[in-house]
Amino acid sequence: MAGMTPVTIIGLGAIGTAVAKAYLEAGHPTTVWNRTPARAAALEELGAVRAATVQEAVAANTLIITAFTGFEAAREALEPAAAELAGRTLVTLNSGSPAGARETAAWAAEHGVDLLAGAIKNVPSAVGLPDTLLYYGGAKTVFDRHEATLRVMGGDTVHLGEEPDLAAVYELAVGGMLLPALLGFFQGAALVTSRGLEASTMVRFSQKWLEMIVHLLPSLAETIDTRDYDNPESALGLFHEGIAYDHELGREGGIDVSWQEPMHDLLRRAVAEGRADQSIAALIELLRKP
Amino acid sequence: MAGMTPVTIIGLGAIGTAVAKAYLEAGHPTTVWNRTPARAAALEELGAVRAATVQEAVAANTLIITAFTGFEAAREALEPAAAELAGRTLVTLNSGSPAGARETAAWAAEHGVDLLAGAIKNVPSAVGLPDTLLYYGGAKTVFDRHEATLRVMGGDTVHLGEEPDLAAVYELAVGGMLLPALLGFFQGAALVTSRGLEASTMVRFSQKWLEMIVHLLPSLAETIDTRDYDNPESALGLFHEGIAYDHELGREGGIDVSWQEPMHDLLRRAVAEGRADQSIAALIELLRKP
Repeated sequence: MAGMTPVTIIGLGAIGTAVAKAYLEAGHPTTVWNRTPARAAALEELGAVRAATVQEAVAANTLIITAFTGFEAAREALEPAAAELAGRTLVTLNSGSPAGARETAAWAAEHGVDLLAGAIKNVPSAVGLPDTLLYYGGAKTVFDRHEATLRVMGGDTVHLGEEPDLAAVYELAVGGMLLPALLGFFQGAALVTSRGLEASTMVRFSQKWLEMIVHLLPSLAETIDTRDYDNPESALGLFHEGIAYDHELGREGGIDVSWQEPMHDLLRRAVAEGRADQSIAALIELLRKP
Repeated sequence: MAGMTPVTIIGLGAIGTAVAKAYLEAGHPTTVWNRTPARAAALEELGAVRAATVQEAVAANTLIITAFTGFEAAREALEPAAAELAGRTLVTLNSGSPAGARETAAWAAEHGVDLLAGAIKNVPSAVGLPDTLLYYGGAKTVFDRHEATLRVMGGDTVHLGEEPDLAAVYELAVGGMLLPALLGFFQGAALVTSRGLEASTMVRFSQKWLEMIVHLLPSLAETIDTRDYDNPESALGLFHEGIAYDHELGREGGIDVSWQEPMHDLLRRAVAEGRADQSIAALIELLRKP
């Protein structure tokens, strides 16, 4: 185990437990602490050092990783050990708002601890796999110092930039696709099942369709970055014509498609502004508040 | 070219032209017709037989493929050749409503022509590739007779069932994910760009996120098919808590997120119905009209 950076994991929910296991498997000396001790005991059996208190857990190592549900919970858990934090590196892994990340950065600065505010874009069972993505905001020098150790949690480990709220920003930016995409799928499943067919029969077609969207994103992002919406691959006017299909779907399947109404309004407004021949990406201009 | 089924392609827009080229390249004797003759002339140079009239185009072969923007346009183009259709097979490739497909099936039956109403789920440049998906509704015996020839247009050629409107049904069901997913991406891009970062920086994260959604679909579909929403992988309550993040995104980036309001209402209604611990797939029950 020579040369393996020792780590402390605080917060042993599903992610924290998976992180601790990944470090133990990789041969890092690993100290763990959790408010309720049962999960720490299970990890102790796998070779972890179980700290009796959060102070002890923090004092044990210079690299502290917290895995809580949000920034407030992380700060609250660390507060009793605040005096021990100076000179160490704190890596937070949780969801939370950019504002919460900034508050935590101010709190960390106050206590003299280097902060990397990170997020893991995957499920607990993916922790430690080569393709698993984790990204971080915070000082590049701090990231560089710990990059090899952080990579134990996932092979796709990324430094987003110096600002401590960047992981939270990207979490919001990327995560917002999920609910709308799923509702689109459920609506389609409602149509297929209204015909007595199983939703499972559409899965592979929907998956191919999502793959098509995957391939569209780079050119849409380029269009957004250049703000040059002309000569589009996917014209806004075609989506505007597609409104009729959404209503058709509602009629065919006896489905409430009214959740799409504001999206249709955006298309109608864009066409009224003369954007029919522009890229569908021009909708971003309508989302930006003046 | 011995044994290669001769085909007629009617309607030489981007898809029709790509289809004609695919058959020519595969060595099938190929007859083409288009209302305006320039595109047919270009295909003639590649070896196609250019029919002078739609009657001549239909009379030339027993397998007729039309590629128009909708069912009405296809029927309108074929109407002058209606008397020639009896005993042949008509394959339609177009978008359109299930009702339009049923009307076309009635029209085809009236004229004694076998109909396969199909759709291609891809761009013109993908016509002819091994992975390109085309699906069809119509008599299985007719599909089986022509399957090898149809496969020239794309290696992933699927018979959905006997009903002639099934391709249109699946088109509606699958296609409805696109606009919501893209708006989710645009909203995220609006946040990232509000920070002076390029939308391109989020692309690979968004792509990974879409891949995660790809992997979620089979179990969500199974949940929908069994209507057993308990013990979920993705609990509705977590999405309900996520409403706060959508509003946070709006505040952070100065973004109008009101297009998500009806989706949030669906989550609130579902939680009010006691579905917080159910699968997010339970939202389908709220989309189905009583």
